Amino acid sequence: MIRAGVIGYGYWGPNIVRNFRACGAIDLACVCDTSSEQLARVRAEHPLLRTTSNIADVFADRTLDAVAIITPVASHFELGMAALAAGKHVWVEKPLTASSEEALRLAAEADAKKRVLFVDHTFLYTGAVEALRTICAAGGIGHLVSYDSVRANLGRYRHDVNALWDLAVHDVSILDYALGARVLAVSATGLANVQGLPEASAFMTGWLDGDAILHVHADWFSPLKARTTTIAGDRRMVVYDDNEPVEKVRVFDRGVVVERGAGTPRVSYRTGGVEAPALAKTEALTVAASHFAECVAESKKPITDGELGLRVVRVLEAAQRSMRAQGRPVELDPF
Amino acid sequence: MIRAGVIGYGYWGPNIVRNFRACGAIDLACVCDTSSEQLARVRAEHPLLRTTSNIADVFADRTLDAVAIITPVASHFELGMAALAAGKHVWVEKPLTASSEEALRLAAEADAKKRVLFVDHTFLYTGAVEALRTICAAGGIGHLVSYDSVRANLGRYRHDVNALWDLAVHDVSILDYALGARVLAVSATGLANVQGLPEASAFMTGWLDGDAILHVHADWFSPLKARTTTIAGDRRMVVYDDNEPVEKVRVFDRGVVVERGAGTPRVSYRTGGVEAPALAKTEALTVAASHFAECVAESKKPITDGELGLRVVRVLEAAQRSMRAQGRPVELDPF
Amino acid sequence: MIRAGVIGYGYWGPNIVRNFRACGAIDLACVCDTSSEQLARVRAEHPLLRTTSNIADVFADRTLDAVAIITPVASHFELGMAALAAGKHVWVEKPLTASSEEALRLAAEADAKKRVLFVDHTFLYTGAVEALRTICAAGGIGHLVSYDSVRANLGRYRHDVNALWDLAVHDVSILDYALGARVLAVSATGLANVQGLPEASAFMTGWLDGDAILHVHADWFSPLKARTTTIAGDRRMVVYDDNEPVEKVRVFDRGVVVERGAGTPRVSYRTGGVEAPALAKTEALTVAASHFAECVAESKKPITDGELGLRVVRVLEAAQRSMRAQGRPVELDPF
Amino acid sequence: MIRAGVIGYGYWGPNIVRNFRACGAIDLACVCDTSSEQLARVRAEHPLLRTTSNIADVFADRTLDAVAIITPVASHFELGMAALAAGKHVWVEKPLTASSEEALRLAAEADAKKRVLFVDHTFLYTGAVEALRTICAAGGIGHLVSYDSVRANLGRYRHDVNALWDLAVHDVSILDYALGARVLAVSATGLANVQGLPEASAFMTGWLDGDAILHVHADWFSPLKARTTTIAGDRRMVVYDDNEPVEKVRVFDRGVVVERGAGTPRVSYRTGGVEAPALAKTEALTVAASHFAECVAESKKPITDGELGLRVVRVLEAAQRSMRAQGRPVELDPF
Repeated sequence: MIRAGVIGYGYWGPNIVRNFRACGAIDLACVCDTSSEQLARVRAEHPLLRTTSNIADVFADRTLDAVAIITPVASHFELGMAALAAGKHVWVEKPLTASSEEALRLAAEADAKKRVLFVDHTFLYTGAVEALRTICAAGGIGHLVSYDSVRANLGRYRHDVNALWDLAVHDVSILDYALGARVLAVSATGLANVQGLPEASAFMTGWLDGDAILHVHADWFSPLKARTTTIAGDRRMVVYDDNEPVEKVRVFDRGVVVERGAGTPRVSYRTGGVEAPALAKTEALTVAASHFAECVAESKKPITDGELGLRVVRVLEAAQRSMRAQGRPVELDPF
Repeated sequence: MIRAGVIGYGYWGPNIVRNFRACGAIDLACVCDTSSEQLARVRAEHPLLRTTSNIADVFADRTLDAVAIITPVASHFELGMAALAAGKHVWVEKPLTASSEEALRLAAEADAKKRVLFVDHTFLYTGAVEALRTICAAGGIGHLVSYDSVRANLGRYRHDVNALWDLAVHDVSILDYALGARVLAVSATGLANVQGLPEASAFMTGWLDGDAILHVHADWFSPLKARTTTIAGDRRMVVYDDNEPVEKVRVFDRGVVVERGAGTPRVSYRTGGVEAPALAKTEALTVAASHFAECVAESKKPITDGELGLRVVRVLEAAQRSMRAQGRPVELDPF
Repeated sequence: MIRAGVIGYGYWGPNIVRNFRACGAIDLACVCDTSSEQLARVRAEHPLLRTTSNIADVFADRTLDAVAIITPVASHFELGMAALAAGKHVWVEKPLTASSEEALRLAAEADAKKRVLFVDHTFLYTGAVEALRTICAAGGIGHLVSYDSVRANLGRYRHDVNALWDLAVHDVSILDYALGARVLAVSATGLANVQGLPEASAFMTGWLDGDAILHVHADWFSPLKARTTTIAGDRRMVVYDDNEPVEKVRVFDRGVVVERGAGTPRVSYRTGGVEAPALAKTEALTVAASHFAECVAESKKPITDGELGLRVVRVLEAAQRSMRAQGRPVELDPF
Repeated sequence: MIRAGVIGYGYWGPNIVRNFRACGAIDLACVCDTSSEQLARVRAEHPLLRTTSNIADVFADRTLDAVAIITPVASHFELGMAALAAGKHVWVEKPLTASSEEALRLAAEADAKKRVLFVDHTFLYTGAVEALRTICAAGGIGHLVSYDSVRANLGRYRHDVNALWDLAVHDVSILDYALGARVLAVSATGLANVQGLPEASAFMTGWLDGDAILHVHADWFSPLKARTTTIAGDRRMVVYDDNEPVEKVRVFDRGVVVERGAGTPRVSYRTGGVEAPALAKTEALTVAASHFAECVAESKKPITDGELGLRVVRVLEAAQRSMRAQGRPVELDPF
């Protein structure tokens, strides 16, 4: 059992509080929010939980092993550094920080202080992504050809980051974790249809090591909700549709057969069966919370550590630069 | 009744032959193909139809008013010019030509010769696109914000053109005809997963006049068939799903409401009803064939004339240049 | 503001407690359950709420205006009568009672005591059913021809009632409320695939006044979840799919056109447009709770009063009799 | 190569003609129809095929080995007997005859004359039903619990038979062939919404040997097209959705686990993976035609012989009797 405090009770904070309590491995000591309105919500929903509007109180509380930072992206770096300075293990909402420079420094500081830095890429703790990882690790799709994702719906416009930082962040982290693929360069485009807010409709192409391609369409201005990821390998293809209630992951035994001779290659098509594996059903955030508690207790690196968080931010940062230049390709700096 | 010959009986030719005969306004006189295998197919399917393997015979046949050119893109220009030289009206498979220079010259020649130049952008003759046009022309969607299309499936790899020329060609022509939007610049990316063949997976963003955006995902290497176009206006949104057997076009009374004051704008979401209009059911190619016959008979410009065909080719050509430069934006030359 | 107690905190009780609190018109005073395990759940989820394991305490509490009975069907009659005897207004879970005789006596007693008897046919308070009612009341479907419903999924096997009492209960009440149709006779069949438990797969046909037909397939042993109601009128047809996240109700302008002359009639088919109205989004149980509180406060009959509850039980009872006789038709006794 | 003639070129006849020619094992000699309009269609579609309006000519043609009878159900018996009398092998459209007595006599006559009697239950020759049969034969679903089918759409009202004879005929034959199940008794209900025509909406429950149940909803008056068969076994469940373009058959590793002790049984639910086998893609009618030709050539019993055709008619006949008695159960006479 580790003892933790939560900073931030806006859109996502309530889920963190509920799952920290549900996972059985975290003793949730207090919730902090600078808005008295949000604190009133905490008290209504969790009458017995201690609340404070003073962030410094949380860091000063010596009984706490860990702090969860569930605040706007721009504040992650400063709050994370303060938490590490106070000797706390840190859970931070994704994306890790607003820039790769911040991410690099925060990850280095956690290493130096020997504290756990856990980035809440929740999706990586779902049964669906675990199944993707298992399938790909076993060579099930063969050589990766393309990873295409559509994450569209109407709303929730964010003020702090654009649709790529909000939604493509999932794909960049899934690609990293489940497929082990690295992004070499990106081209991104987008449209801010509400003046004064970030791009609501955004498109990103990434070139991957091993001659594969990544494409993400992230959109807050679309009539229907889509959460569909299509992963095409040269042996098999996978569709991960998070809208599906049960068969979220389907593996298609489909592909092309190429015959080479004189002249242009002849391509024929192969359509075999389909399988949808049974998926683990535990809520992802509960799994994540347990994993965090275990990493703190046993001084282990989490799956979603600062390095992974940094790699994700670097891709998003490059995409943002490309978007400002209307799709001009941007190479990721070598480490 | 006009009298016509068809050149090319490969993948699409049989549809042309069937619909020319079905439309009631065209007297189909002969079919030409240089492959004896294809000519044998013609005779099996249409035992009473005259066939020839000699293209010159077709142009020399004085009884023919018109010639349909259903051959690989690279040959459109030469065959089209020859047909015009022989005084024929010309139906040509889309895309019009392999380059905008060719398209410009062919369109100019048709004008000079006072012949009809009809480009077979079949989709523009569907009930669905007609409904789109009617809705948009009546201001039904308000101001266009974005046009996004996914055309994916497994196969049919083409040898002559990439997935954008094969599939995005539909979107560029629909955008032109049904929404009256012009593309100012494009950024495109793609992957050729079969070495020696064109890009099978391709993505294109286009910036439109009036601050709107176009995005197309065209793919021959995807496990599931998608033919989904989402058009978002600031009043309403439309989804055109060609996979749907009946409700192909749905109009969503959805959008955002922006409140502006001090600070960042506040956005709320509006979710009203949905309507799917009844669509004309005549097969598009039959409608197209009748329209062609009428234009020839009455010396009229078709909806899909050389100008439209040229505008489409110019966008695709720019996209191809951008794709070679990994997404670098390419502006369309002003006329 | 009325003051109420809840008896029963099993599967459905937690929803009642949550919505009584959420509706703003009910002061929830206490929750009673005879299981100490369930009471522990109440305290975990609502730490400040009074609990008791003694049902008599609830009836004896003079501060309570109303009691909600959320217990197995077999106990509804006895608890309902006791509540009325104690002068309470009564909310009772559907179906009202286990027999029409009980329902008749309970409804009569509520009338005699001038208390509100509210049957929780929750569906009747959804935006979807309200839309159905509005459409049908306005003559939108014309003359009713058939009402067909499929409610299938895997699980939740009930011990007290079969799949018809569990699921068809919704259809019988929707038919009564939204379409004003009465069932004249029924034929029902079913299969109990787990020995010792009620029929998990059940089918019911009902003949309605006005030459229309009702059919329900209710199933706990089916791999996929279906909640689809199809209502065919001679003018238009409606599909109400409760699995759809947004477009739950769709109105199809479809039907047949019958030409009569000598010989057999000629039938042709009409396929017009489709409309999905925007639906009210307030949670149905919140609407129901507010309506209950208002009826108590203003001494009004609720929409789902004892009479409606009785009519529903009479149909289910007849279906059960038919099912025991392998589909032999059973007429409903005239009142 | 066998030589055959076809009688009847209405709704289904053209498919027979096309597939007899396509299968490569049948020399189609002539087509007969009493309507000159239909014969004109034959000549337009097959200019080189001999036509006649005189049925007697077909039977008298000594060069013919076989005759296909594609006429209304009421004429099957008489034409079938005449064909056998002329020494022809017989292909007859499903259902075999209008009554079990006729079916019995026709099957007996074929046996006596040592001729092949082939009933065109086309579905049994699809890759989907073959996969169902393979799965069930291998014990894949365990013990059959229920077979439920919905075959609904708007139109095609038939004049000769009701929706059960038109559509449930598929299910009765699939059940017989793929699951080897026999129907012991039936209860059926229905509604004729167009006066003067057969029941357009019909429902049938059948009790099967081995304590399983069959249910079919057959409907010509429904807004959406459904072709969904759900087969639940105690080990696994299968959904066969003929509307699906590719994954028509899906096997669900789902079910219940029953724990028995004192008191009522405890039921828990099992949700494992899903598999969709690759299906043979040859058009069913081509497979059927080849099988017929082979049976004629090698004097074999076809899969869909007179015995199977008779068993199917017996179930439909019993259902019709039950329907007239509003669902009263009707037992099938023991053979």
